[in-house]
Amino acid sequence: MGQGGARGQRENRMMREAHREAAERVSQARLWQRHMAMARIGAIAGNGVNRPALSDEDIAARRLLIEWARAKRFEIGVDAIGNLFVRRAGLDPTAAPVMTGSHMDSQPRGGRFDGIYGVLAGLEALEAIDEAGVVTRRPIELVAWTNEEGGRFQPCTMGSSVYTGARKVEDFLDVTDNEGTVLREALARTLAATPELREHNFNAPAAAYVEAHIEQGPLLEQQGKTIGVVTGIQGLRWFNVEVFGKTDHAGTTPLALRQDALRDAIAIIDTLARFARDPSDVVRFTVGRMLVTPNSPNSVASHVLFSVDLRHPDPATIDRLGRSVEPLARDAVRQCTLKVTPTLHDDPCVFDAGVVAEIEGCAQALGLSHMRLPSGASHDAMYMARVCPTGMIFVPCEQGISHNEAENAKPADLAAGARVLTAALLALADQ
Amino acid sequence: MGQGGARGQRENRMMREAHREAAERVSQARLWQRHMAMARIGAIAGNGVNRPALSDEDIAARRLLIEWARAKRFEIGVDAIGNLFVRRAGLDPTAAPVMTGSHMDSQPRGGRFDGIYGVLAGLEALEAIDEAGVVTRRPIELVAWTNEEGGRFQPCTMGSSVYTGARKVEDFLDVTDNEGTVLREALARTLAATPELREHNFNAPAAAYVEAHIEQGPLLEQQGKTIGVVTGIQGLRWFNVEVFGKTDHAGTTPLALRQDALRDAIAIIDTLARFARDPSDVVRFTVGRMLVTPNSPNSVASHVLFSVDLRHPDPATIDRLGRSVEPLARDAVRQCTLKVTPTLHDDPCVFDAGVVAEIEGCAQALGLSHMRLPSGASHDAMYMARVCPTGMIFVPCEQGISHNEAENAKPADLAAGARVLTAALLALADQ
Repeated sequence: MGQGGARGQRENRMMREAHREAAERVSQARLWQRHMAMARIGAIAGNGVNRPALSDEDIAARRLLIEWARAKRFEIGVDAIGNLFVRRAGLDPTAAPVMTGSHMDSQPRGGRFDGIYGVLAGLEALEAIDEAGVVTRRPIELVAWTNEEGGRFQPCTMGSSVYTGARKVEDFLDVTDNEGTVLREALARTLAATPELREHNFNAPAAAYVEAHIEQGPLLEQQGKTIGVVTGIQGLRWFNVEVFGKTDHAGTTPLALRQDALRDAIAIIDTLARFARDPSDVVRFTVGRMLVTPNSPNSVASHVLFSVDLRHPDPATIDRLGRSVEPLARDAVRQCTLKVTPTLHDDPCVFDAGVVAEIEGCAQALGLSHMRLPSGASHDAMYMARVCPTGMIFVPCEQGISHNEAENAKPADLAAGARVLTAALLALADQ
Repeated sequence: MGQGGARGQRENRMMREAHREAAERVSQARLWQRHMAMARIGAIAGNGVNRPALSDEDIAARRLLIEWARAKRFEIGVDAIGNLFVRRAGLDPTAAPVMTGSHMDSQPRGGRFDGIYGVLAGLEALEAIDEAGVVTRRPIELVAWTNEEGGRFQPCTMGSSVYTGARKVEDFLDVTDNEGTVLREALARTLAATPELREHNFNAPAAAYVEAHIEQGPLLEQQGKTIGVVTGIQGLRWFNVEVFGKTDHAGTTPLALRQDALRDAIAIIDTLARFARDPSDVVRFTVGRMLVTPNSPNSVASHVLFSVDLRHPDPATIDRLGRSVEPLARDAVRQCTLKVTPTLHDDPCVFDAGVVAEIEGCAQALGLSHMRLPSGASHDAMYMARVCPTGMIFVPCEQGISHNEAENAKPADLAAGARVLTAALLALADQ
């Protein structure tokens, strides 16, 4: 991504001065205040946030973002899955945009920074660039992806999977949340809440995508670095395992005659956990969701649905783990019947070397300590990496805690990440 | 419970003729139609019923029962926990009543007969006695106990435990259901829905209590008997086990660093299930309810609550089983902390020999096939047995299936049970 020749280097140096000026316009105070304003939407005890995708809280967050974007006269649009776009125009109206963004939905007991940081850092970058008066060739476009978390509607990274053509909106319309609400209705409500938005006019694929995010792990804090230059994302397999039994009276039915879905579900989870055991502790195996029917103390469970989340950075290993889930579950099940549905299949992803180098160069030029690291968590950047050169910027979070009310980050680190993002977007927007 | 002397025997025989006439007034068609009318309130797919305690459906069932009782000009009352009383007066206004009844609430996926049969059979008995014009010394009183099932609010048999003084209303007011609704509010709504009812004027303890119920087990059907003369109820222990962990990101947090509440809950359940294993299959061990927080596929569970239901007919065995739950759970828990709360403690109960003999005699006199058997399920009769001579009448249900939409019973069997109930109540009401 370099430009050849002495003239190119001179231009490059001049650009970088303008970029540095824009980066310095990033306001730590404004960025922090916006985080706190967003954290009030869906606030829960312990400084946490519960902002499910396509909920009233999600709608309120969208309205607030739109209000801030509109104050700067940026163009705003939305697409069929509810991805929200904020665009600062470039010189060349036919050029594909450079994009940045993340998500505004949270885990049911999530924190104040996961996702929303990438959205607010992107808006901060747009404003800083605007205030610095930098003209770019390409448009720079912020996107708030719909339902990254998958906490309410599964699977996760829904908005970016649709945007990049990996999935279709129709694939998800009949998905229901734990309360039985159908995504179709929640999405329609969300879109109806912002009727003033013009439909987003894709100029895809994007020229590049850079996503800022809290690390959600302990490495940056442990190493005392401000900026994480993310090299890629580990592979992931999601499954819904359903066990079908028969409900019976807990007092009268002999155990030998039962088809107890919970008893079999526990046997399956136990088997899977033993199989996934890894002395090096690199395999991530999680059962985080379980729905029991009828869920009454004196009725034998007739149906259990539980989730399986498996991750590993090595393509062959994640493949082997994923392929083992259904046969192992079938071996473990005793009196019930079984249905295993893969809900997400993401191979490990390696980010574009040029974008990674650009982010590293910007951190270096801005005098910020930095290190390369992989991402343990999935992000929308994984889907964007399939369609355009992509990278991510991590900033430290306290003790690596995330998906937890106690999730925390420092205002200065958030601002530093937004400055690197600003500089990187500008560099990419003139390519 | 016999009467001595030739005159006594003559009177006894005369009474029994009046009792037979009343028993024959039991209308199989009316009793069946009322079951079907009640089954429409909270009807679910597959012929099932979901009528949670203190819900809108419960209120609708109460209103329907009141409407039927009022048409016969029976007295109607309610107490502080919502137990609903329907009384046919006796000659002696100071005499303690003979009582009958059961419950109108159901399991979340319950059937059309569990509980409601005992209420409708009781009403049918009152009407049959009234239509036959039989005058009794004692009042005969039907009661629909509040929240027998414990499917929505735990523990079960709430109404009868309060009525008999074993528990206080105040013990239960702060209990919440799976949606967070507090019992205090649900109870207030239920009581407010029938403001016309006078407060029930206790004339307790009752002189006797007889409850009719479907067997909820396979014995009567297997043996080809119409009437089960119930000898007692097995002992029961309920616990809520809570596991407290820490929520974390499923992709980033190494398994060794997790405090995964679901992982520990599974280890505990597995340990308890192994401990409760019984080659003779008499021990009943059930985990039927499990609530996971935050219940999201990519968040490690921070909190799991699950129920333990243990039953055995032998007092020493149920005691040993119950006392082992907390120590075994403490041994099994790994990274989390634990809270074990006993929510119900019922020792095995043996019914009054006189009432059991009376029921048996009535079945015999009415020409119905009968057998003695214990109850695997708990019933409100267990609390009543602590305060007055008590017995139960079982009728067959198809394949012994209960706590299931497929629960089924035959109109003729239901009517036969109501006839035995009518005769037994009359015999007891003159003692």
